[in-house]
Amino acid sequence: MSARIDDRVVVTAINRVTGASASTDQDLVAAEAPLEILLAHPSSTAAPRSLGVTMRTPGDDKDLVLGFLLCEQVIIGASDVIDVTFDTESGRVDEDGAQPARARVTLAASIDLDAVAHTRVLDRSSACGLCGRLAVQAVRVAGGGRATDMPRIDPAVVAAMPDQLRQRQAVFAETGGLHAAALCDSQGLPWMLREDVGRHNAVDKVIGAAMAISRMPAIDSWLVVSGRVAFEIVQKACAAGVAGVIAVGAPSSLAVDAARAAGLTLVGFVRDGRFNIYSGRQRIATTNSN
Amino acid sequence: MSARIDDRVVVTAINRVTGASASTDQDLVAAEAPLEILLAHPSSTAAPRSLGVTMRTPGDDKDLVLGFLLCEQVIIGASDVIDVTFDTESGRVDEDGAQPARARVTLAASIDLDAVAHTRVLDRSSACGLCGRLAVQAVRVAGGGRATDMPRIDPAVVAAMPDQLRQRQAVFAETGGLHAAALCDSQGLPWMLREDVGRHNAVDKVIGAAMAISRMPAIDSWLVVSGRVAFEIVQKACAAGVAGVIAVGAPSSLAVDAARAAGLTLVGFVRDGRFNIYSGRQRIATTNSN
Repeated sequence: MSARIDDRVVVTAINRVTGASASTDQDLVAAEAPLEILLAHPSSTAAPRSLGVTMRTPGDDKDLVLGFLLCEQVIIGASDVIDVTFDTESGRVDEDGAQPARARVTLAASIDLDAVAHTRVLDRSSACGLCGRLAVQAVRVAGGGRATDMPRIDPAVVAAMPDQLRQRQAVFAETGGLHAAALCDSQGLPWMLREDVGRHNAVDKVIGAAMAISRMPAIDSWLVVSGRVAFEIVQKACAAGVAGVIAVGAPSSLAVDAARAAGLTLVGFVRDGRFNIYSGRQRIATTNSN
Repeated sequence: MSARIDDRVVVTAINRVTGASASTDQDLVAAEAPLEILLAHPSSTAAPRSLGVTMRTPGDDKDLVLGFLLCEQVIIGASDVIDVTFDTESGRVDEDGAQPARARVTLAASIDLDAVAHTRVLDRSSACGLCGRLAVQAVRVAGGGRATDMPRIDPAVVAAMPDQLRQRQAVFAETGGLHAAALCDSQGLPWMLREDVGRHNAVDKVIGAAMAISRMPAIDSWLVVSGRVAFEIVQKACAAGVAGVIAVGAPSSLAVDAARAAGLTLVGFVRDGRFNIYSGRQRIATTNSN
C-alpha cells in the first residue's frame, strides 16, 4: 500500500473525499521512522550507551545526531566526534540500501559518558520500539479491541469536525499558539476538549479527562486534532480505543502504517468540505466516484 | 515584562512591525512551563520514581498526568491511581496560587514501579531544569557569548525570510507534513536548510550540518523556522550561538522569557510584511511609530 520514493517521502494509496463522494488516488506523506543513538569510546569493550530512540524523517541523519549532541552539550564541536556509523535492523546500511535504524557514535575519550546520563534521554517507550515494524506490531496489539460494528459516520460530520474544534478552542484564538485535541461523538459534537502547546500533551489531557469521568475506552468516539499526526498520536488513539483520528493537518508515513495495522480510521487535511482517508474507510459513509 | 492572566495565557510587551515601522503593544502568548511527574506507592518509604519533566501549558494537569500514564500503559484505568497531588518549587500549590511544578502520583501497590523503568522517559535535560526560573538561568549561561556588535538587520529582510524558506523547502510542498529550519545570513539568504517531521529534529539537523562544515557557532546568522517556537527551540538557538530566531508561527511564554534572558532576538508571526518582535529589538533596524 505504501512505497518509499526517497528518504523523505512515501507514496500511499488514499481516498479523496469531496462532499460524500470518495475517489481512490495516491498521496505523498512525510517519512517518519525511529533512529536509536548509541554512544561509545574508541577501542572500549564497554557496551555502548543508548540515548534512546528519536522519531525522525530519514535523511541527513548524521546532521541530526551531531546537532542533537551539540544542543545537549554532550559535545562542543565536531572534533569531539571520531566517527558516526549507521546500521539497519538487519545489518549495515550500505548492504541493502535500507534506512538506518541505529547511529553508532564514537566520541573522543575525553568526553565523560557518565555525565551523558544527565543529558536529555530520547524516547525509550517500549511501545514505540526501535523500528517501524516493531512499532506497528505494538499498536496492532493495542488496537485489538477496536469496535467493528459501529454505524458509519457521515462525511459531512467529518468535514465539520475541525470547525467544531475551533469554535470551542478559546485560547488558540487569542494566542495562535496552542494545539487542541477533542473527543467527538458520531454526530461530530466534542464532548471533551483540551489545549496545550504540545500536541501530544493536548491528546494526553483529553484522554485523561475522559478517563476521570469513566469514559475510557472511548470506542464510539473520534479523536480530532488541530495539527499534524505523527506516529505518537496514533499510538495514543489506540490506547484510548477510539474509532479514528481526524486531523486538520498531514499524517506521517508511520502514522498511516500504524493506523492501518491497528484497524484505526485515519483522516487528514480536513478543509473546505474535503478530506483524505488514509486508513479505515469502512467507517465513513462515502459513495464511490471511481 | 510578562504577566500571567490565566493558567494558559500570558500577556507580554512586544513591538509590532509593519514595513519598517515598529509600535509598542501587548500580545497574548500560550503559557509553557515544566512539570515533573513522580510515581510512588502508598505508605512506601522508598524515594518516588521520577518520570522526568514535560513542558506543558499549565491547567488540566491532572488530566495530563492520567492520560500520559494511560497512553504509556503504566495504568489501565482510573482505579489504578490512588491520589495525585501537586506542589510548586516553593511549596504546596494551594498555599500561594503558583503553578504546579511537580505532580506526585500515588499508584496502587499492584503496579510494578520497576516495570515503569521501561516506559517512556520524559525530558531529563539538566539545561531544561525543573522550573522556568532554572531553565531561563540555563539559557542565560548558554547565551553568554552572543555577538553584540553585528549590523542591524533590515525589517524587509526579516519579512522575506519565511518565503525564502518555503521556496527551498522541497518536501513540504509535496506532503504538507514537514517542518523546516534554516540558517540565514544577514541578507536573509539561507545557507543551510533541513526538514523533518519533528521541528526539534529539523533544528538539530541544520545545526549539525553547519557544525560539519565548521560554521558553528553561527553568531552572524539567524535561525528561521516554519512553525511555532517553544522553549526547546530557543535552547537550541542559544547552543548554536545565532543572533535570533525568526518564526512563521507563535512563540510560547517560556520561549519569550528564555530569549530575553539569553539576549536572543525572537520574532514571530512573520506574515504579509508584518511581524512581532518579542525580544532583542535592537538587532532589527526599525523606526518608531510610537
